[in-house]
Amino acid sequence: MGYGRLHDIDEADFIVRQREPFNAEPRSQRLIEQYVTPQSLLYVRSHGATPQLDEDHALEVSGADLRTATLTLADLKASFPERRIISAMQCAGNRRADLQSVRKTNGDPWDVGAIGNVDWTGVSLADVLLALGVGDRRDGYVVCTAADVDEIDGETHPYGISISLKRAMAGDVLIAWAIGGEPLSPAHGAPMRLVVPGYAGVRSAKWLTRIELRDEPSDAPIQAKDYKLFPPDEDGSDVDWRTGLVIEAMPVNSAICDPRDGDTLPAGMVTIYGYALAYGRRVARVDLSLDGGACWVRAQFIDEDAAPDAWQRWQCTAELAPGRHQLVVRAIDEAGQLQPECAQDVWNFAGYLSTAWHRITVDAQ
Amino acid sequence: MGYGRLHDIDEADFIVRQREPFNAEPRSQRLIEQYVTPQSLLYVRSHGATPQLDEDHALEVSGADLRTATLTLADLKASFPERRIISAMQCAGNRRADLQSVRKTNGDPWDVGAIGNVDWTGVSLADVLLALGVGDRRDGYVVCTAADVDEIDGETHPYGISISLKRAMAGDVLIAWAIGGEPLSPAHGAPMRLVVPGYAGVRSAKWLTRIELRDEPSDAPIQAKDYKLFPPDEDGSDVDWRTGLVIEAMPVNSAICDPRDGDTLPAGMVTIYGYALAYGRRVARVDLSLDGGACWVRAQFIDEDAAPDAWQRWQCTAELAPGRHQLVVRAIDEAGQLQPECAQDVWNFAGYLSTAWHRITVDAQ
Repeated sequence: MGYGRLHDIDEADFIVRQREPFNAEPRSQRLIEQYVTPQSLLYVRSHGATPQLDEDHALEVSGADLRTATLTLADLKASFPERRIISAMQCAGNRRADLQSVRKTNGDPWDVGAIGNVDWTGVSLADVLLALGVGDRRDGYVVCTAADVDEIDGETHPYGISISLKRAMAGDVLIAWAIGGEPLSPAHGAPMRLVVPGYAGVRSAKWLTRIELRDEPSDAPIQAKDYKLFPPDEDGSDVDWRTGLVIEAMPVNSAICDPRDGDTLPAGMVTIYGYALAYGRRVARVDLSLDGGACWVRAQFIDEDAAPDAWQRWQCTAELAPGRHQLVVRAIDEAGQLQPECAQDVWNFAGYLSTAWHRITVDAQ
Repeated sequence: MGYGRLHDIDEADFIVRQREPFNAEPRSQRLIEQYVTPQSLLYVRSHGATPQLDEDHALEVSGADLRTATLTLADLKASFPERRIISAMQCAGNRRADLQSVRKTNGDPWDVGAIGNVDWTGVSLADVLLALGVGDRRDGYVVCTAADVDEIDGETHPYGISISLKRAMAGDVLIAWAIGGEPLSPAHGAPMRLVVPGYAGVRSAKWLTRIELRDEPSDAPIQAKDYKLFPPDEDGSDVDWRTGLVIEAMPVNSAICDPRDGDTLPAGMVTIYGYALAYGRRVARVDLSLDGGACWVRAQFIDEDAAPDAWQRWQCTAELAPGRHQLVVRAIDEAGQLQPECAQDVWNFAGYLSTAWHRITVDAQ
């Protein structure tokens, strides 16, 4: 049995980036076929071995003035209203390969598939915290610990992250148990995980074991050191981790998913497909160039009525003459914020937030 | 009596961009001296002659199922709780001079001063609409008409704009009558104006005469044609106005205010001052370069506890060797969104949202 089967995916649909821990992204042509990404086509990002937890695994919620509770999945389902939210989840390292073509960075060379547009089912974290007595308090942090154990700098640590209590209480942060109505697979956090819409995937902790209300953020390395953004002039050799920007929301991004870089197509009319998203802002426009960025046409949105934190797929039909073409996509959000032109402008040693214009080369014949 | 006096400003503090209609921005060294911009240092953007309205001028509120009301300033003060909000107001054309250095655009060549960080006093528009029966309705538009008459394409029109009812009901949109506790001057909209925090200045209509709840946005040229963003490849000669992005929120921006481009300074230690803002997002970092962008240092925030839609001033002390130096500033917001490097990347024929890295040249001797 291969690692792929252990992680409930069909490897034919995936590009495996690492086997241990298991990290894989779907082939982008498959990913873009549907608005809502099925669990079987959702990227897998693991920092350690995949925990195998039972259905009766219990989550402990505690801290500050909260009444301490131990909650199984059955307890959550019995005690709180079910919520269903469609929101995009994107790894902070999605499209990292573009940064690595500028200069070496940490991390796996993700292409455009470390993202999915997911239909989550769960309960609102705010409902749980209100039931346990959070009251009007909004300062402080919700600190989450998970069952996976990760090796960082030669030491092992339980996976831990935090979000502000204010964000946690917005109503849309879920303790989720299903994707597209199906129970979470082990690879995606069974039996229950956090989902923080509009934040980088790292904050949506899988295999939740403990949620604590604290005055300070998590001091686990995933929160305190990793997943921070540093300026392009910082090479990472002698870095003060406290000075990095904690990655939560992400910049406007877009990518071409079909065709793929290096494809050969029949010359003539082709339709090009991809996604765009802007994290709580609407995507105002997607521009496509067939000639490396000299001339641009407007792409059409496929998903006109996308949810606020969802992606929007787009398409553009064009005529390609025989020969080699560089296709380029760029999106602009409703605040007029454009993706940066060049990956070198946003290069950073950890390889996060790779959001320059996406370029692929295809041959038409 | 000069136009400046008519507009209650001391021309020594201002650069006048147009006399009729009157348009002027404060000298940026004066602007950056204080966190809260006094009315006497706030840029003036007029589209027509300045209306001279009395204290008993009345605003009509009507439309859809609302009870129609005619409200003077005294009525507003007597009927609704007073609200005070500090928020930055920036002209969509601020820093347009940088775009014009790439290629000609429409509009005046604003430098970095078409912005202010304003302490507004007024009543919440949401309170007024609730009192008149808006109920739970949130679809549709609040259409505002003002007393100024503007000439556009050879025809005259009353100034008109709209915002979504959803935005209008957020609580922070004001019908304002004071800046820094002083009654609005005629130039700034006396006796009452709209204030839409986090949106381009154009939506904060001065000299309000009518507010209507409608199913459709305003069809006045200011809303329907002007103040829209088009792509760099659109030259404006045969434009379909419907395809432009209505400018509301604006991209992350920053500027050097002191020293000024072309200044001569004593060589040695100097402190450089400016502002940064990100429209509803926190500014995460401000970088300053003393050598045209090759090396960067972190600027310090002066205003650590800035309000959510306010600007943040920053400073940076550096040693300048004798000679010519290009100083560059760039800001990054909490979503990791960086200002674009080059003005040509964001050029547009109407000259809006000029947010490339800000560069000035100084001589140290």
